Amino acid sequence: MAGTSTPRSADSPPPELVDLLGALSYASLAGFGRTAAVAELAPNLTAKAVLSRLAVISYRNYEVLAAELADLGVDTEAAATAFIPPIDAFHARTRTTDWLEGLLTSYLGAGLALDFSRELATGAAGPSGERVRSLMQRTVRDRNFSVFAEQTLTAALAADPRASGRLALWSRRLVGEALSQAQRVAADRIELTELVAGGLAEFATMLARLTDRHNERVRALGLA
Amino acid sequence: MAGTSTPRSADSPPPELVDLLGALSYASLAGFGRTAAVAELAPNLTAKAVLSRLAVISYRNYEVLAAELADLGVDTEAAATAFIPPIDAFHARTRTTDWLEGLLTSYLGAGLALDFSRELATGAAGPSGERVRSLMQRTVRDRNFSVFAEQTLTAALAADPRASGRLALWSRRLVGEALSQAQRVAADRIELTELVAGGLAEFATMLARLTDRHNERVRALGLA
Repeated sequence: MAGTSTPRSADSPPPELVDLLGALSYASLAGFGRTAAVAELAPNLTAKAVLSRLAVISYRNYEVLAAELADLGVDTEAAATAFIPPIDAFHARTRTTDWLEGLLTSYLGAGLALDFSRELATGAAGPSGERVRSLMQRTVRDRNFSVFAEQTLTAALAADPRASGRLALWSRRLVGEALSQAQRVAADRIELTELVAGGLAEFATMLARLTDRHNERVRALGLA
Repeated sequence: MAGTSTPRSADSPPPELVDLLGALSYASLAGFGRTAAVAELAPNLTAKAVLSRLAVISYRNYEVLAAELADLGVDTEAAATAFIPPIDAFHARTRTTDWLEGLLTSYLGAGLALDFSRELATGAAGPSGERVRSLMQRTVRDRNFSVFAEQTLTAALAADPRASGRLALWSRRLVGEALSQAQRVAADRIELTELVAGGLAEFATMLARLTDRHNERVRALGLA
């Protein structure tokens, strides 16, 4: 892991930057655990390996973010603490032991995470914006996973069209829980919201864009 | 991932080599899932990250083994199928929701896996022995994890000495279940047993050595 455990200078890093890195680092680490749990539901070794690989990529992103915090002289646990309850609450409220619901969670979750990191890569504002944009270039995504998930979900829906209603409902629940936790964090942390989107109104507009793209993915799967 | 999906020649690879690679690849993938589940029990972000990293290393070993099978023109799922029931049975019989039992499982399991890979690195016999020895050089271990686990378990036992009896019992259960599954596989697959240890009698001697080293680790933690 890169970085150092001592601050580079007497200046403290901007709190909203520490907040963003703390939130993203715990989101990545929790995403690792969540995706690994979905891998345990996989019906065969190939599917288990694909989901495990997605989890490993999430852990790699955690490492990148934790190294960035270390470089700022900030302990990851301290930076993440405030964001553990909302992220854990999201996962607790969207837990499932059903393979297709789990796969859909990983697929739509990866889509939301990628869209959010693109929003950050273009929209991060203020004095820390440039650092955030550069960091987003270094986080990694799994291109193969999306193809696997789309093919698997499409085949499952073709074999059992009645699953469509249940999975459509699950998709709405996922984005609803994600938005609800994101809005709660944004209202509590105005400086963080300004870094992410420029302000609360712009943040609401950003969430609407993320929801639109989520809905497009849901429709493309034939769920609606 | 290296390798190719088509056989390199018309000669089929030795079945006992395919068996060994299949067994080790599923053991690594299942170890990933098991360790990731222990990470979910961790009491803080630092511990969660340490366990997650151990899981990631297990996945990397799965990739190395799957690539070796692909290089032999063998599908990983086909090679692993026979070994999924005993490996899943081991994990099902040693499942726990207790953090210390989970951590102890990962610690003693990593120790057994390392000792077994060392046995293979020195003892793999017959025409495939050299290939196995070279492969064992390429699998990876997490040195930091052992230190973390020893410190955490020692501190927990100092704080709650009554946990010692329960964890000692858990240690015996772990090695008992592991040996029971290993013996079942060895009796079913004589050629595999010959590749691993030179024969059934030598395999029994090897299991006794592995048990001795396991017991040393248990004693070093103050469990006995």
